[in-house]
Amino acid sequence: MKAARFYAAKDIRIEDIPEPEIKPGAVKIDIAWCGICGTDLHEYLDGPIFVPQPGHPHPLTHEEPPVTLGHEFSGVISEVGEGVSDLKVGDHVVVEPYVVCGECIPCKEGKYNLCDNMGFIGLAGFGGGLAEKIVVEQRWVHKIDDSVPLDEAAVIEPLTVAVHAVRISGAKAGDWALVGGAGPIGLLVAAVLKGEGLHVIISELADLRKKKAQESGVADYIVDPSKEDLKARVRELTNGVGADVAFECAGVNPVFDGMQDALKMGGVLTNVSIWGHDATVDMHKLVNKELVVKGTIGYAHDHPTSIKLVEDGKVDVKPFITGRIALEDLIDQGFKTLIDHKDTAVKILVHP
Amino acid sequence: MKAARFYAAKDIRIEDIPEPEIKPGAVKIDIAWCGICGTDLHEYLDGPIFVPQPGHPHPLTHEEPPVTLGHEFSGVISEVGEGVSDLKVGDHVVVEPYVVCGECIPCKEGKYNLCDNMGFIGLAGFGGGLAEKIVVEQRWVHKIDDSVPLDEAAVIEPLTVAVHAVRISGAKAGDWALVGGAGPIGLLVAAVLKGEGLHVIISELADLRKKKAQESGVADYIVDPSKEDLKARVRELTNGVGADVAFECAGVNPVFDGMQDALKMGGVLTNVSIWGHDATVDMHKLVNKELVVKGTIGYAHDHPTSIKLVEDGKVDVKPFITGRIALEDLIDQGFKTLIDHKDTAVKILVHP
Repeated sequence: MKAARFYAAKDIRIEDIPEPEIKPGAVKIDIAWCGICGTDLHEYLDGPIFVPQPGHPHPLTHEEPPVTLGHEFSGVISEVGEGVSDLKVGDHVVVEPYVVCGECIPCKEGKYNLCDNMGFIGLAGFGGGLAEKIVVEQRWVHKIDDSVPLDEAAVIEPLTVAVHAVRISGAKAGDWALVGGAGPIGLLVAAVLKGEGLHVIISELADLRKKKAQESGVADYIVDPSKEDLKARVRELTNGVGADVAFECAGVNPVFDGMQDALKMGGVLTNVSIWGHDATVDMHKLVNKELVVKGTIGYAHDHPTSIKLVEDGKVDVKPFITGRIALEDLIDQGFKTLIDHKDTAVKILVHP
Repeated sequence: MKAARFYAAKDIRIEDIPEPEIKPGAVKIDIAWCGICGTDLHEYLDGPIFVPQPGHPHPLTHEEPPVTLGHEFSGVISEVGEGVSDLKVGDHVVVEPYVVCGECIPCKEGKYNLCDNMGFIGLAGFGGGLAEKIVVEQRWVHKIDDSVPLDEAAVIEPLTVAVHAVRISGAKAGDWALVGGAGPIGLLVAAVLKGEGLHVIISELADLRKKKAQESGVADYIVDPSKEDLKARVRELTNGVGADVAFECAGVNPVFDGMQDALKMGGVLTNVSIWGHDATVDMHKLVNKELVVKGTIGYAHDHPTSIKLVEDGKVDVKPFITGRIALEDLIDQGFKTLIDHKDTAVKILVHP
């Protein structure tokens, strides 16, 4: 079968590899669509990062490059292994692409997103979504309703990152949320917040991203902090109170600072972004407003929520699909588009 | 009556002023003991800070310098105003020394420690504890059992700052807590944690403070991070897990960083200290461990808890009383001792 395999930075090859074999407790999936994640792009540009270093196989998969890429995927079950009861051939599914040990303390506490030996399918081994087929342990396979188109279903994985961030934040229906940055993760966080009944304000500087936020309908208000006083605008919208929750989705200090200012007393700032450097934090503000800053990563037990949001039509992921390409075009029409059009390309889906 | 009045930095005068008059809804208190707070010391050295600037009276007290100092005090009720029902002459009491508006959003939500117009008795006006008598609205007066000596009762105010910080943190009995810094507030936080049934580890560099922590019995373990690897030691003590909660009581980056490392996955770092500068925060650590950082200031609805901790003997504040002086000696034996012996002087109590 065809698969996109990571050998080294700038060396990703589409090649023919043997089809994976079914195993007890696992299912074989014919992959329909697989999204390209920012993580994949970083591997392409500067990897191996999450992919194991050559000569240092991942402790759980025991694999090292070349590995198959792709962890945001949907598909249809084509074969069911011994002992699998809840899934059957023909089921439409998405995959929670974790490789975890099950033995460390976070795993034992159910926080498997914080596993000491964490790996990802599509990065650390065990196949990937940028291939025709994959075999996955039933634990990680989530059935979705046939009414959800399979291209939209491929967006459920990144959507679940947003669902987890929103859950961690403690945001609830009726609250006012401020989302800083309208890149892919900011838009998805906004979509979840809106789907869960919050009032959503997006703060964004870039015109094309403001436009995308506008078109996708995930924000009640879009504020450009280079043109308006963000704190004053949020206060005005919230009856003088400030935002209940804020989501840092940009990884830059001015956004972080602006959120500290725009939050209400006792507000919660959830950091979803990956920073390229340390943050500088005004501790007086943190203390005098009794703010809470939370880190969030990945997801755990969150797929049922994100699947339901999509199945119930509370989140429409269509606006986030900005490209559909064939596996052969992964580099030229996938990675290169994400690099050249970073303000407009949200999710490019690959059909293997 | 005699009172210590702030005129300007380095100009605090002990003078005779008229006794305050009883008012409806208030009680008159014969002050027994009043502790000197770090805040008072800062006012003495660099004020006015929380004391209103000359010509800019506080919006609620309408007072400006000179004002009477002192907000950590105990005493006995000597007169009861019209309409006061729950307090009587002879009651031993402590005072929650707030001046709040009751009309801003935090006040309406019961978070009066975050009042937009916040002031403190003993800083912003309405008298102070460094005087013979004071009249206080009944709302802020808390009865204590006669079995609690009045000198110890004067420590209840700073103890309540620690009680609030512990409540904000979500710490619970059986948890492992790491306290960074064994200054007055660190020791009180440790005392509350111990009183509430946690395992307490104090991290401290200074020999005299380590000794004080040892003598006061508030720590199960004292770690000097200049001599031991704090993270490794905490892991060893906690069966490889890390601390559940950590309390930054030093206001310096190495302590903050050390706590991020020593906390368990999903752990809570509560910042109790006042920083003289911004903090530098490793956001990768925050994100990858899903840490929570919380600010805490003052207290609200926490006096009943701290009073009960002392009444029940769960917190012994005696070790924190390092001096007892007369009002006349406030400058020479009070402020100057706190400046010259900052590693050993915890609470100096003044008897007016």
